[in-house]
Amino acid sequence: MERKRIAIIGLGLIGGSLAIRLHEKKISSRLIGMDANPEHEAKALELELVDEILPLDEAIQQSDVIILAMPVDKMTGLLPKILDKVDQQIVLDLGSTKSQLVEAVRNHPKRGRYVATHPMWGTEYSGPAAAVRNAFENKAVIICNEEESDEDAVQWTKIMYSKIGMHLLQMEASAHDLHAAYVSHISHITSFALANTVLEKEREDSAIFGLASAGFESTVRLAKSNPAMWVPIFLQNKVNVLDVLNEHIEQLKKFRDKIQDGSEDELKKLIEQANQIRRIIK
Amino acid sequence: MERKRIAIIGLGLIGGSLAIRLHEKKISSRLIGMDANPEHEAKALELELVDEILPLDEAIQQSDVIILAMPVDKMTGLLPKILDKVDQQIVLDLGSTKSQLVEAVRNHPKRGRYVATHPMWGTEYSGPAAAVRNAFENKAVIICNEEESDEDAVQWTKIMYSKIGMHLLQMEASAHDLHAAYVSHISHITSFALANTVLEKEREDSAIFGLASAGFESTVRLAKSNPAMWVPIFLQNKVNVLDVLNEHIEQLKKFRDKIQDGSEDELKKLIEQANQIRRIIK
Repeated sequence: MERKRIAIIGLGLIGGSLAIRLHEKKISSRLIGMDANPEHEAKALELELVDEILPLDEAIQQSDVIILAMPVDKMTGLLPKILDKVDQQIVLDLGSTKSQLVEAVRNHPKRGRYVATHPMWGTEYSGPAAAVRNAFENKAVIICNEEESDEDAVQWTKIMYSKIGMHLLQMEASAHDLHAAYVSHISHITSFALANTVLEKEREDSAIFGLASAGFESTVRLAKSNPAMWVPIFLQNKVNVLDVLNEHIEQLKKFRDKIQDGSEDELKKLIEQANQIRRIIK
Repeated sequence: MERKRIAIIGLGLIGGSLAIRLHEKKISSRLIGMDANPEHEAKALELELVDEILPLDEAIQQSDVIILAMPVDKMTGLLPKILDKVDQQIVLDLGSTKSQLVEAVRNHPKRGRYVATHPMWGTEYSGPAAAVRNAFENKAVIICNEEESDEDAVQWTKIMYSKIGMHLLQMEASAHDLHAAYVSHISHITSFALANTVLEKEREDSAIFGLASAGFESTVRLAKSNPAMWVPIFLQNKVNVLDVLNEHIEQLKKFRDKIQDGSEDELKKLIEQANQIRRIIK
């Protein structure tokens, strides 16, 4: 694959980690960066995540590929404006919701140049300093509505993701948002809510600190995640997120009621049912 | 410290992992095992977790220390019977709840020989085959109501836990159960309920399997935990568990309501509040 000049708009955890990977895998001949936050731009240069920072218009002109890696609300506003300005460049996004974005450019004359993707990787940290090596490896990436994208754009995107070690899945944007609510968005809500529960109930930090087991850390670690990223995800995927969140509250109430009643057998059944997750998570 | 003959009653994940550690650290001169499940006994011998299997009475007679590592409901029944039979042996338990156990032997003439402990370590797997090396290391162990135990028994217990790399905390049994509800028991309930939510809503296993991110795995992994261990914990610690579970449901409803209303700023506040968990979890 011929190396390309790649612009990354949004130099946080995801954009920064992808920049490292594109360079490592010799996919980029040049990496141009841009971020709404000048401190992130400076940090990305200092960390050599990108070769240079350029204003948006110049970044678009001087690139073969433009990658959007910013909060999804910002993306929905920016994507049509970027498509207004592209000629034959490929534009792709790494956002965690897909329906609104795909909808925002459905009738855009340059729609074909855009590929909607969601690489299923992240950590609970944010900003360019959180960028890590070997990100994305062995994780899934979902490409949505690929029939709406030009073939060359889809092909390059698929090869790029394969080269950085991801396995490809195709899905409609609406199906993506539904599944993402189940296997990613709800986990963040439960983790945020668990942190608030413990911080609310447990006034002695030292008790939490001293006693917190690996299990607690594991269920609560996502609570460190960035609101700028997650608020727009929950709101853009509102219908699916509310649906799964309501179901989750019902499931918790089942546990509450069975504990309240001291129903040993019923509790055992609920836990055995939950144990079925072993089918899915090794 | 002089090596001791140690009997471990209950040869699952916890008892088995402790057996490995006691041998490694040259704390035991001989390890005697016993389990209600003969298959666990056979497996523990096969894996050389213990030197021999003996019936309970003989195990008590031939040991200097007797360690209980079974589900907490079984423990509450068995502990008084063991104390009936001990002379100068030290008896300690590794259970996840402490109030009922301490209560069960409060007026026992041999109460002093018993030390109530909770090493804060575990995994989501169970049985002797799940036992691992280097368990317990760098984790906290709580010793409860130590003023009710004989000094020599407490001293040996503390040295043993220090040798296997744990840091010691002292607490009343009731305080232990309160804190454990916050930093361990609730995590298991949220994880079980999350697994049930996803298994209920997401009928396509392949979708979960393909998409499940590290975040999802992290919040749901405890859902693989064993009902035989967890049902008795939730029931023995019912009051505290219900209290924290009700608070958790309220916290989830706050997220639901703010998402429903599209209250960007309020959602941001809830998440920023949750981010405070960074104070506690590195």
